[in-house]
Amino acid sequence: MRRLGILLSGRGSNFQAIANNIAAGRLDAEIAVVISNRESAPGLQIARSLGKTALAIPSRGLDRTLYDQMVLEELHRHTVDLVCLAGYMRLLSAQFIAAFPRRILNIHPSLLPSFPGLDAQRQALEHGVRISGCTVHFVDENLDSGPIILQAAVPVRDHDTVDTLSARILKEEHRIYSEAIAIVLSGKFSVEGRRVRINAQ
Amino acid sequence: MRRLGILLSGRGSNFQAIANNIAAGRLDAEIAVVISNRESAPGLQIARSLGKTALAIPSRGLDRTLYDQMVLEELHRHTVDLVCLAGYMRLLSAQFIAAFPRRILNIHPSLLPSFPGLDAQRQALEHGVRISGCTVHFVDENLDSGPIILQAAVPVRDHDTVDTLSARILKEEHRIYSEAIAIVLSGKFSVEGRRVRINAQ
Repeated sequence: MRRLGILLSGRGSNFQAIANNIAAGRLDAEIAVVISNRESAPGLQIARSLGKTALAIPSRGLDRTLYDQMVLEELHRHTVDLVCLAGYMRLLSAQFIAAFPRRILNIHPSLLPSFPGLDAQRQALEHGVRISGCTVHFVDENLDSGPIILQAAVPVRDHDTVDTLSARILKEEHRIYSEAIAIVLSGKFSVEGRRVRINAQ
Repeated sequence: MRRLGILLSGRGSNFQAIANNIAAGRLDAEIAVVISNRESAPGLQIARSLGKTALAIPSRGLDRTLYDQMVLEELHRHTVDLVCLAGYMRLLSAQFIAAFPRRILNIHPSLLPSFPGLDAQRQALEHGVRISGCTVHFVDENLDSGPIILQAAVPVRDHDTVDTLSARILKEEHRIYSEAIAIVLSGKFSVEGRRVRINAQ
């Protein structure tokens, strides 16, 4: 149980961090396929340069159910165990969620439930929080919802801009996403209500 | 500028922490008066045992405007510079806020804007966050709103109960409330939108 399917819409910097951690032996997994809803996503080129299978499945003009079915077919074709969203700018259908129960992860650049949605770092700065961070969570049908697996906190500095805060958070994203993937692949966790408990080995 | 007025409705453990920090020379301030809307608030007895002026002003049957006026009169009579809420279970009227502009602080046991309102620690556990904490903020007319001065983060453990998480957060509350009071008394801060910047000395 260690084949990852990556879905991305852009650069997919978290995908690259996962690939790096795998290459360095810090994460026991393999990237089975990278899929983007945008043909121009730089993450696809990066995936190919790393020798990974990378597919564009353009979503334009397709309804969500049909589109998700096409993506699911590719994930199944590549015998993916765990789906990792890495800047994938689409909500998933109920049918997609049901096909990978507790097997779809996302990372979000805030301490959820604060600042869901777009521009989380800007939201945090404008709200004036002194601590922000990032969250890896199971994906459900709602935006940036679903049980939380790991979070990391970072300070917000007086002179932070969106760029400086985003860079500080991104460093933690790259760390905890791979940690969360390892936890889920190991199966050593339980979910009770919204609460995820991670069992010591 | 260092005379504090404390408003509380219960035990007021944050009031005690402030009193301890003053007594130990860690906070340059003095407690001018402690006021409770509940005669039975244990915090009043504790205040008297520390030799502080402690008043009950029961709110029952009084409308908010009239009640707040009575409290304001006592705060002015004791020449209070800064009002610190310590488990004060009432919203303040616009007139109260206007009487102490940027001179009313509250502490809340979550990383706001997550989990405002009652039972913040239980809310955090039930939501399944892995990081929670506490927030000192300026008070405005809304619940647990107002610009944030300081926050502290704590981990949420797999086996935490409301009690164990609350105790871990409370330790940080006792630390950052006095730090925030010192910052506000010093005047060395600025507020831009919702964002509080703390100027290095």
